[in-house]
Amino acid sequence: MHPVKALLFDVFGTTVDWRGSMIRHCRRFGLPDETADLWRAQYQPQLETVRSGQRPWVNLDVLHRIGLDLVLAELDIPLPDRYRTTLVRAWHRLDPWPDVVDGLTALKRTHIIAPCSNGHIAQSVNLARYAGLPWDAILGAEIARAYKPDPRVYRASADALGLDYDEVCMVAAHNADLEAAREAGLRTAFVPRPTEDTEPTGDWDRVVPSFLELAAP
Amino acid sequence: MHPVKALLFDVFGTTVDWRGSMIRHCRRFGLPDETADLWRAQYQPQLETVRSGQRPWVNLDVLHRIGLDLVLAELDIPLPDRYRTTLVRAWHRLDPWPDVVDGLTALKRTHIIAPCSNGHIAQSVNLARYAGLPWDAILGAEIARAYKPDPRVYRASADALGLDYDEVCMVAAHNADLEAAREAGLRTAFVPRPTEDTEPTGDWDRVVPSFLELAAP
Repeated sequence: MHPVKALLFDVFGTTVDWRGSMIRHCRRFGLPDETADLWRAQYQPQLETVRSGQRPWVNLDVLHRIGLDLVLAELDIPLPDRYRTTLVRAWHRLDPWPDVVDGLTALKRTHIIAPCSNGHIAQSVNLARYAGLPWDAILGAEIARAYKPDPRVYRASADALGLDYDEVCMVAAHNADLEAAREAGLRTAFVPRPTEDTEPTGDWDRVVPSFLELAAP
Repeated sequence: MHPVKALLFDVFGTTVDWRGSMIRHCRRFGLPDETADLWRAQYQPQLETVRSGQRPWVNLDVLHRIGLDLVLAELDIPLPDRYRTTLVRAWHRLDPWPDVVDGLTALKRTHIIAPCSNGHIAQSVNLARYAGLPWDAILGAEIARAYKPDPRVYRASADALGLDYDEVCMVAAHNADLEAAREAGLRTAFVPRPTEDTEPTGDWDRVVPSFLELAAP
C-alpha cells in the first residue's frame, strides 16, 4: 500500500457542528429549535433528486432553499424571502468542533488537507474563512458535479490531487460516507461526533477520538 | 460598481518567479540555462492546441512534458524518461517573488484570494504548499477545463465563488491576461515583474508595484 498523502474531510457534522450552529442561526429569526432538525431531514431527500437524475446538478444553496421552504410551509411560518436567503447563507457560517482548527493545522504540515463535502466551492470557501479551516484546496461535490455517496465525488477529489485512490484517506463521522469512500478505493478514518455517528460500524483503517489523534504519528 | 470581494492571481510570472526557479531546476540535471526559456516558449503553442480544439483538455503536466520533449530533441540532449518526469514536476516547486507571501497574507484578511492560473489543481496545491501561498481555494483552468485567455476560465472562477464578475479582480503581470479578464467582466490590477511585462499597456483599475500595495487601503 502507498503512504497516505492527502486527507479528505467530510464537513457537515464531522468538521463543523452544523446542528448547534443552525439552532443558533434559527433563533435569530425567532424560529423554533426543531427547525434545524427538520431542515436537515430534508437534506438527503433533496440530494437524492440530483443523485437519481430527477434534477440536474444544482448547488447546496439551491437545495437548502427548497428544503427550508418545505419546512416553513410545514410549520406554517410565513418568513419573508430575504430572511430565507440569509438563513440559507447561514450554512456558510458554522462553528468547528473544538479539536478541528488545531488538528487541521497540525495535519497540514505532513498531508494535503481538503474538504470532500457536498457543499459547493463558494459555501466551502466562506465556511473555511469563518471557521478558520486551513484547507489546501476545495474539493468535493462541485468538482464532480455529483453528490456523495456517488463514487465520482471521492474519485474526482483524488484525481484532482493527482493521487492514487489509496494515497487518499477519507475522514468522517458517518459510517455510510466511509463505506462509499472505501468502495471508491480510498482509505478511511472514523471520528465520532455527538450529533452524528458515535460508533464505528465498519473495520475502518483508523478510528480516532478527534482530529488531534489523526495528527499523532 | 460592487466592492471587490475576491482577488484572482495569475501564478507563473506574477506570483512565482518561474524563470529563476526553472533555471535552477534545469542546472540540477546539467541542462543549459536556455532550456528554461526554450521550454517556456513552448507554453503558449501547447496551450493553443487545447484552446483551438485540436486536443481535448489535458492538464499542464501533460503539456509541459510535450514541450520538454520537443526542446530536448531540438537541443539533442538524451535525458532519461524518469528525469523528464522529475523536471515536469519541478513546475510544482517554484519560488514566490519576495512580496508575495506577506502580500497575500495581508490581502486574505479582507478578500477571498485564489489563483486563476493555467496550472491544474494538483500543481497549484503542490506549489502553494512549497511556496507558502495561503489561497482560500484553487480556481482557474481545471475548474473550467479551458485555458486562459479563454473567458470561461475567468468566469468559471468567479462563478465558483458565487460572485458577480465585477466583484472579482484579476491580478497579473501580463497585459494580455488583464485584457481578457476585463473582456470577461472582471476588474483588473497590474503588478510589474522583471521577467514579465514591466509596464502597463492598458487603463487597468489598479497599477501597483507589488502585492503589498494591493493590500494597502
